[in-house]
Amino acid sequence: MKNFLSVHDVIDLKKLVDLALKYKANPYTDQTLGRNKRIGCLFLNPSMRTRLSTQIAAQNLGMEAIVFNVGSEGWSLEFEEGVVMNGTSVEHVKDAAPVLGKYFDILAIRTFPGLKNREEDYSEQYITEFVKYAAIPVVSLESATLHPLQSLTDIITIEEHLSIEPVVISHPKIVLTWAPHIKALPQCVANSFAQWVTALDKTNFVITHPPGYELDKKYTTGATIELNQHQALCDADFVYVKNWSSYTSYGKILSSDADWMLTNEKMNSTNNAKVMHCLPVRRNVELSDEILDSPNSIVTEQAANRVWAAQAVLSTILNG
Amino acid sequence: MKNFLSVHDVIDLKKLVDLALKYKANPYTDQTLGRNKRIGCLFLNPSMRTRLSTQIAAQNLGMEAIVFNVGSEGWSLEFEEGVVMNGTSVEHVKDAAPVLGKYFDILAIRTFPGLKNREEDYSEQYITEFVKYAAIPVVSLESATLHPLQSLTDIITIEEHLSIEPVVISHPKIVLTWAPHIKALPQCVANSFAQWVTALDKTNFVITHPPGYELDKKYTTGATIELNQHQALCDADFVYVKNWSSYTSYGKILSSDADWMLTNEKMNSTNNAKVMHCLPVRRNVELSDEILDSPNSIVTEQAANRVWAAQAVLSTILNG
Amino acid sequence: MKNFLSVHDVIDLKKLVDLALKYKANPYTDQTLGRNKRIGCLFLNPSMRTRLSTQIAAQNLGMEAIVFNVGSEGWSLEFEEGVVMNGTSVEHVKDAAPVLGKYFDILAIRTFPGLKNREEDYSEQYITEFVKYAAIPVVSLESATLHPLQSLTDIITIEEHLSIEPVVISHPKIVLTWAPHIKALPQCVANSFAQWVTALDKTNFVITHPPGYELDKKYTTGATIELNQHQALCDADFVYVKNWSSYTSYGKILSSDADWMLTNEKMNSTNNAKVMHCLPVRRNVELSDEILDSPNSIVTEQAANRVWAAQAVLSTILNG
Repeated sequence: MKNFLSVHDVIDLKKLVDLALKYKANPYTDQTLGRNKRIGCLFLNPSMRTRLSTQIAAQNLGMEAIVFNVGSEGWSLEFEEGVVMNGTSVEHVKDAAPVLGKYFDILAIRTFPGLKNREEDYSEQYITEFVKYAAIPVVSLESATLHPLQSLTDIITIEEHLSIEPVVISHPKIVLTWAPHIKALPQCVANSFAQWVTALDKTNFVITHPPGYELDKKYTTGATIELNQHQALCDADFVYVKNWSSYTSYGKILSSDADWMLTNEKMNSTNNAKVMHCLPVRRNVELSDEILDSPNSIVTEQAANRVWAAQAVLSTILNG
Repeated sequence: MKNFLSVHDVIDLKKLVDLALKYKANPYTDQTLGRNKRIGCLFLNPSMRTRLSTQIAAQNLGMEAIVFNVGSEGWSLEFEEGVVMNGTSVEHVKDAAPVLGKYFDILAIRTFPGLKNREEDYSEQYITEFVKYAAIPVVSLESATLHPLQSLTDIITIEEHLSIEPVVISHPKIVLTWAPHIKALPQCVANSFAQWVTALDKTNFVITHPPGYELDKKYTTGATIELNQHQALCDADFVYVKNWSSYTSYGKILSSDADWMLTNEKMNSTNNAKVMHCLPVRRNVELSDEILDSPNSIVTEQAANRVWAAQAVLSTILNG
Repeated sequence: MKNFLSVHDVIDLKKLVDLALKYKANPYTDQTLGRNKRIGCLFLNPSMRTRLSTQIAAQNLGMEAIVFNVGSEGWSLEFEEGVVMNGTSVEHVKDAAPVLGKYFDILAIRTFPGLKNREEDYSEQYITEFVKYAAIPVVSLESATLHPLQSLTDIITIEEHLSIEPVVISHPKIVLTWAPHIKALPQCVANSFAQWVTALDKTNFVITHPPGYELDKKYTTGATIELNQHQALCDADFVYVKNWSSYTSYGKILSSDADWMLTNEKMNSTNNAKVMHCLPVRRNVELSDEILDSPNSIVTEQAANRVWAAQAVLSTILNG
């Protein structure tokens, strides 16, 4: 694996999931693999789980991790080609990335979308230019449209749960449900989850959201779109809760309908589903206390799995 | 020792002090104890000595230390139960802390009081919720009302000095004197120093301050309160200088009387006392140049001892 | 070598350059030298290359590097003697530096000039007081007037290139040319480059700039000042491009004449010169895309050499 930007970079998904679970059982089994290797973790935006789990994953492999908050600790970056840089950007990615490529063995980058210009965000210019100019493997710590480390974690968590269920669930029903939020959030987690789940065999994958929240079709092909949330939740084995802003009316909040928040009552029609969320979650806005504090919630376990997902990705990259 | 939040978590204070002094003599004697262990240092507020000394202490024990500036690098946290999170807080401690508990072996947290609402600050809600939800040992890097790593350092520094004095001082007189400041500061260091000194045997502990600066009695039981600073300083062996805002008129500055600043002249009545301060100190406001630059000042040595205090605490926690 | 603040701290420049190139060939050859040693990297101002390369250099030597962003993570510092600290500064360097001197084996500091008061900036008060009060070796990560780690890197890069040229260049012509910029920048890189190049044997060193941009003579003695850029560039082997604000009309921007920007056409009169810049660079303001994207540009390689310069300096200090 050269880069890790989306599911398309993964050669063997099952093998990657198994490797993550191997690390969960034995975190330090490859502690010499990363010796004298160095990962640079660049944050153009805030992060908690991704930041910490990536550092931990690197350390578990014996790598040095160096964290750099690009805007506050360094210089704001320019991404446009050919521009006369007489504005607020101090340095071009064409000059910064090659140097970072000399300093590190792997570069990991978090960069959020602006949510103003869909074409620009969906071009993934920022991370693409880092890939182009750094000339070393690049790992997405969430980019403008995708969050692959989160999605790999999600798949690991689902697979892990299926393996411990007392009854074999051969075709799990996985529901991604939109949830209300007070801010306009990226579509990254939803896009990425759809992209990874549709890459799995033998799932019944349903996406439910209010009208106007249709995701980019390139990620949802293979999924059932069901605008009736109640209908969607019926017999679900896993319910993934997430807000996103509109893709069609780009970056807009079209609904803040509190009826879309998941409740215990709505859970009744599920197959005692496990509830997932990538965190951070706004309690009683996106997801109710009663769900988050119930045994159905596996959000902590899911977030804890971030370490093993990151470790499997870094290890696979280090192994070429 | 499970957590380190106050003197009440310490099972054997003498043993803890001795361990710190052992580390001061041999910093790397337990360098394998922390192997494959990880401490997460969370800062909700600024810090220099605490931040650096805790990292160094962890490294001396062979632990990995990961620092996280909660507000600027991650998300602002919510601590109220049951709240509808439609405001500025992005994540609830109930969701963040359990994940941090999975990532780390020890969690260390700095969080200052708001100084607006005494009941709220003195409930120690923030650090208490971290303890409740993280499910791993928590170390206070200064909380709303206490600063135990500072106080342990202070005790170490006093014990160390007593041991090298040419004449045995069997009942040292230790004076905590209020000092002026231009900002409203927490009572943490003063509360905590009082709590730890009163836990010692054979001391004569006097607190002096202007009227209205009485500390919470639960910390000062066993101390003599003497409002006349001159009287208090008489024959002192150690003078601990510190500003705090009012506890009774909560968070208020009642006095900025420059006469309360310690001077060489005032020192004349002491037993050639050692002068202590936790730093940072505002020179010529809290404490005069003439004192800080005199041989009586042991503030640098005291701050340097922060490493050994932190190392003794982490080591004791690691050893169960 | 005790401190590393300017070329005057270097006992044997050739040996230092050779050591850096040795590390470039074998980064981990001295990986035990820094065992149980610790460097504190203090940033009073932003940094990318310096920050990252110093951490990497330390790690390559087996040292622990701890980074501290003074203003945002800790307390703003006071540098004036005898001041009554009732303003915005929370801590005096006289109290902070001795503690840092106890925590670390080497202290590295970045601090920019204010560009308001020349005498103040050129007194180098900040870094000088750290040297005075920390009582351990201090490494400049760029100070008010100089940037020695950058200059050592520049010398290394020049020497390296001379060694691989097919034709021996016995007296290379090195040209430092002023370039336009929209902001008032320090003179540090230019001062320092002049100081280091004039310390070399057998070079023809020319500085060119618009009138009013004369650097402090103490750095340029031995250099030829040529106000005609075209004339200066003639037969150049290396062209170092850099903006600086006026030293004589201190901190002022006297010219933003775009004609001073280096172009391919201007390069025609050079000896197919290598183009250098310390980065960050504002493209098409300081330096054109056509130059930066041409094979003549060695800016990435130059920035990559920052690691080896830092490693040679730290290693020399560790070796006493």
